Parts: sequence; C-alpha cells; structure tokens
Amino acid sequence: MAYRVGVIGGGQLARMMIAPAVELGVEIRVLAEQEGMSATLAATSVGDYRDAETVLAFARDVDVITFDHEHVPQDVLAALVEAGVTVHPGPAALAVAQDKLVMRQRMAELGMPQPEWAAVTGPDELAAFLAENGGRAVVKTPRGGYDGKGVRVVSDAHGADDWFAALAEDANGGALLVEELVDFTRELAQQVARTPSGQIATYPVVETEQRDGVCAEVLAPAPSASARLTDVAASVGAAVAEGLGVTGMLAVELFETSDERILINELAMRPHNSGHWTQDGAVTSQFEQHLRAVLDLPLGQATPLQPWTVMVNILGGPAEGGITERFENAMAQHPAAKIHTYGKDPRPGRKVGHVNVTGVELEDVAYEARAAASLFLD
Amino acid sequence: MAYRVGVIGGGQLARMMIAPAVELGVEIRVLAEQEGMSATLAATSVGDYRDAETVLAFARDVDVITFDHEHVPQDVLAALVEAGVTVHPGPAALAVAQDKLVMRQRMAELGMPQPEWAAVTGPDELAAFLAENGGRAVVKTPRGGYDGKGVRVVSDAHGADDWFAALAEDANGGALLVEELVDFTRELAQQVARTPSGQIATYPVVETEQRDGVCAEVLAPAPSASARLTDVAASVGAAVAEGLGVTGMLAVELFETSDERILINELAMRPHNSGHWTQDGAVTSQFEQHLRAVLDLPLGQATPLQPWTVMVNILGGPAEGGITERFENAMAQHPAAKIHTYGKDPRPGRKVGHVNVTGVELEDVAYEARAAASLFLD
Repeated sequence: MAYRVGVIGGGQLARMMIAPAVELGVEIRVLAEQEGMSATLAATSVGDYRDAETVLAFARDVDVITFDHEHVPQDVLAALVEAGVTVHPGPAALAVAQDKLVMRQRMAELGMPQPEWAAVTGPDELAAFLAENGGRAVVKTPRGGYDGKGVRVVSDAHGADDWFAALAEDANGGALLVEELVDFTRELAQQVARTPSGQIATYPVVETEQRDGVCAEVLAPAPSASARLTDVAASVGAAVAEGLGVTGMLAVELFETSDERILINELAMRPHNSGHWTQDGAVTSQFEQHLRAVLDLPLGQATPLQPWTVMVNILGGPAEGGITERFENAMAQHPAAKIHTYGKDPRPGRKVGHVNVTGVELEDVAYEARAAASLFLD
Repeated sequence: MAYRVGVIGGGQLARMMIAPAVELGVEIRVLAEQEGMSATLAATSVGDYRDAETVLAFARDVDVITFDHEHVPQDVLAALVEAGVTVHPGPAALAVAQDKLVMRQRMAELGMPQPEWAAVTGPDELAAFLAENGGRAVVKTPRGGYDGKGVRVVSDAHGADDWFAALAEDANGGALLVEELVDFTRELAQQVARTPSGQIATYPVVETEQRDGVCAEVLAPAPSASARLTDVAASVGAAVAEGLGVTGMLAVELFETSDERILINELAMRPHNSGHWTQDGAVTSQFEQHLRAVLDLPLGQATPLQPWTVMVNILGGPAEGGITERFENAMAQHPAAKIHTYGKDPRPGRKVGHVNVTGVELEDVAYEARAAASLFLD
C-alpha cells in the first residue's frame, strides 16, 4: 500500500512535491483552486479550500493532508480534525502562521529573539510606538499578507489609517502589528523539518536577498557565516518548530544585525522559496523532506552536495512569449544551470520559475545562476 | 507553449522522466501498455504500442515521440514518420537496437571494438565457431532478449537447437548471434546523450555489476579507471551515437579485459539502468538529458556532484508486503540514501526500485547503498 498525501493548493510548492513523490513512490493528490495551475499533473480535484465539504471529500482517500499555502481557514481545519483526518502542520501551528500578531506573541512566550513589536489599534498607539522606536517602524496587517503585501514602513502616526479603517470592519481584527525597523546587515533563512514523532532536521542557514519584498536570490549556505551564527540559527529554528509543534517544513526568516545577532522576521510552515536551493544542492530536498515529515517517516540528510548553491528566482518572465521559449538560449549558455518552471504565464513581478547552480567557487556559482535566470527576462 | 513529449511505454524509465519533466516545465504524456503501470501519473493513454492507429492517435498532440523501451515495431515507426511525427531515437537507429545481429554488423562497419562474433543458422556453423573460439561461446537470440533473457553460454554444437528450431518458424529470423566468451575483468557502461542537431554529452564511464544477467549495482565513476580508459570509453560512446545517428540517451555496455581494452557488449537507446546514478549523482540526470536531447534542446552538464555515487537495484523486493512498508526502517538507518521505487509489486528477480548514495569515500558510499537496498529484501 503506497503512502498517499493530499496537498491543498495547486501552486508551485505543490508542483515541486510531485517529483520527489514520484521517485519515492508516494501517491500525491492535489486540491487545486482552479484548472491549469502549477501542480496540474497531480491535480485530482479542483475546488474551494474555504469550503469544508470540498476539503473533506478531497481528504477521504489520503493518509495525510498538507498544504501549498497557509490560508485554509481554521474552521475547515477543525472540521478535518473532527472527521479524523490527519493534518500536518496541524491547526494550532497553522494558527500562528496565519496571524502575525499571534506569531509575535508566541515567539515572545518561547523567548525567541525578535524585533520590538506591539499590537496597535489606532494612530495614538502607533504614535507611541514610533516615539519609542526612532520615529520609523514597519506596520503589518496580521493576516493575508505575503511577498511584501500588507507590509508598510511608516514614520507618521496616520500612515496606516486606511488599514485601521479596513480592520475596524473586519470581524477578526481590530489591531495592526507594528515592528521596530531593524537595522539589519542582511536577511537569512533557516529551514527546519520536524516530524509528528518529534524528529528534527536542520538545513544550513542561508542568505536571502529580497527585492520589493519578494525573495530574489538565495546563497546557500550563508557566506561568511560563523559556526556560532550557524548553530544559533539552527537552534532558533529547532526551538520554533518544537515550541509551536510544527510538522513538515518550517522556514524561519531572520534578520542578521551588525553585531551578529539574529531576530525572527517571519515564519512559513511549508516548503519555502528560501529552500528551493535544496532541490539541486542538498542530499534531501525540502520537498522530499516535507513529504517524509508529514508522513511521519524518518527525515533525510539535510547536508549540501557541493560547497555552494545559488538560487535565483525568475521574477516576471519575458515580456513576450513563455519561459520555455528561452530554453534554447539559456541551456546553450548555461549547461550547469538547473531550470525549474512553474507552468505560469509571465506577469510583472510574478514568480514563474527559478534557477539553481551548484559548485565550488561562490563567485562563479552566483554569476552563473544570475546570468542564466536573466535570460528569462527582457 | 510548453514542450510536449510523448513516451511510448509506461515502465519505470517513463516514470523517471516525470520528475525532470515537471521541474523543467515539459509536458509529458505516456502511452502505457495497461492501467496501473509505473508511469501511471503521466499515463494519458493506455493501448497497444504494436498498433499503428493507437500510436498515431497518441502522437497527435505531442512535439516528439520517444520510448520507455525499444520494442515498437518498425512498421509502426514508419507509419509515425510517414505521418510527419518527430520520433527520437529514429527508426534507423532503433533498428540497430532491436536486432543484435544488425548491431554487430553495424559496429563492425564503424570499426568499433567488439568480441569475435558470427551469424549462425545451425549446429554446423555453431560447431565451427566453437572450434575457432576455445570451445565455448555465447549464443543470443537477435531479438526480444533483455536482462539476460535470450542469452546462453554453450560448449556443444547442439546447445542451441531449440532456438534454431524456433527461429526457423520466425519470418524475421533464421540466424542466431554467436559471440566469443570474453575473458573480461569487469563490465563497464558508457552513457552518451546526442541531440538531433548533433550535440553530444558523455558521462563518466561507470562499472556495472550484473547478477544473473541483471544489472545489480553501479559504481560511478568506474573505480581505478585511468584517464585513457575514461577517454576511450567516451570516444567509443560518442562514435556509436554519431555513427548510428542515435538521438536521446544511449548506453553502451562494455567489457573491460585484463589488458585494459574495452569491447562493446550491448547497446540501449534510452535511459538505462546503468545511468540511474545520475539522478542523484550528476548535475544533469539521464532522464532530464533524454528529454532535452529528444526535444533538440542544448544538453546539460554531465559531471558528477560528488566524487562517488553508488546505485544498488532493489531486485525482487520483500517477500511479504510492499516496498514502502520498509521505508520506516530504511530511512531511519540510512538518511543519506535516495530511495527510488517503481510502483511495481514485488516478485522474485523483478526490478522494483533502486537506491543511490553519493559521497566522498567509495567504501562508505558502497556500504551505505548496499545496506539500504538490502533492507527492502528479506
């Protein structure tokens, strides 16, 4: 009897679980939002993940339900659990990923390093936070933000009035998250896998470069990372996974400060863009690891295959024609580039694919990955 | 517009093309012999590959037709070509892979190193060959043999009488292939990819260990291979690919003699068991390379990621229960093992999966791969 994993959401993260599922011999089924999405090859169902009946019907024939995204509502998750469906990550962990205010609260309870923060319900409270934190801060909507959406730097107490107004009408809300504007030297990300039985595997911490709030590039492992930094990042990742009871892959996005402290920026409880390098650069990719973790199978080795891997996102894609029309040129010029595409139509700023390159010299590897990815843009 | 590849045959080779197809963004369709085969996830059609109409219908919506095996009859291939379908490898190349007598004849014409051989039509001719070659020889049926089937060592002129009798009734036949019993020190295999445009990529030559005529283990690259041996093997592989006009992956199985000569044993014009190590051990796997080659896209780098990769086949599988029931144990004990399964029911001698391990010390890598694979047997 093969293991059967049901993935809610038909985006590129679900798509990238297909390859390791086929190789291992794990049956993978996907509940896609619509026809023709990235994970279309394994899309056995199409339907609304906010509808409990749809999700329950999808879950009937699988051993475990997992996710391409964190947006499945808590009432749907509760209905699954009540019906006896195994769900990883579980509703309690996902609740933390679904609400940035809850996340900050839980990180504080776990004693994790993080920026100064507060829940603010109006301009007065925002003004007080600004006054205490140098006059500038980051305001975030607790829910629904991703890839830089729902995030804004403000230096004025009225800089988030539109969001306060919108939230006042929101049954869930009332408060915004405000955070200290961290003076970071770079951004890092720590990938961790955790099984329901409690086994944990940590990948080496990586450096991520964001552009316009979107992950653009990842250097793995993080260059010039001291053994101490690597250990601290892995410990923080493991402590968060354990503290929140995360099952499957967890990505902890981090700020590194000039005095080599790390502060938690965001969490993602699924395979994450900052871990795509593992597809070609690690013994076990984050997608295989996620499948093993949610099936409560022993985890694979999380070590790199080569000294360096660089991942560069293909953001937007060509103005004319599809990604694959550039294959000829990109493959001819960059035979070492591993090209991954998501079956999505190009659109400005959209993640439509990525390129991984592995090798011995970071400078060469980074050059190759950037050059190859650039051939898919205009 | 995505590239679309149609694969005839739904076995494990077609299955293993799915992962790179999904990652690249190549649409893959499979014409499977029956329901529930290894490549079932991409099996868009089920039907008889010996029926031209079935195959033509399947070919209608793809850019190129390629194969999981070499058994598609020449009249079906001719019908495809006549209908304007792109077929790689093409009928002329496949004709050589389909008939071992034709293969020996063509290798002789190309001046390739090979064992002494002859076409024999009866016991008298066999007796003459035996007399000239030390009294023992290998007799092979020109068609239909694989994994040691249709191969027999004889030392008696009447040792192949049953095959002569069977062939007499075969419209295609009449002759058997008889070959010198080569006193080899080991068996090697050379993987080569060639595109319709003529680009060639050669992998490092590997050592293969056969058991009962079936590939059991591959050490990549071949241990203690001199630079000369590596060069000669690559040159022979490239010359065969070019000489026969092979498109896609070609595997050249070789004997190495005690004086470090190599002799061609068999050819396979498709991804081959001796190249499975590339899935986890090379920059470009043979399955991705095959897709690139048949689409006439530039080839990927064929270099190893780690000093050593060892592939061990899972032959037969457990006597009770399926392969996946052993995951728990195998993954716990061997976190570095890459497990590949074919979705096939265990049966004595059947190839049901394989394990790849990569690393720096050959002894450790081989131990790990063998130990992990053995956990799937009784």
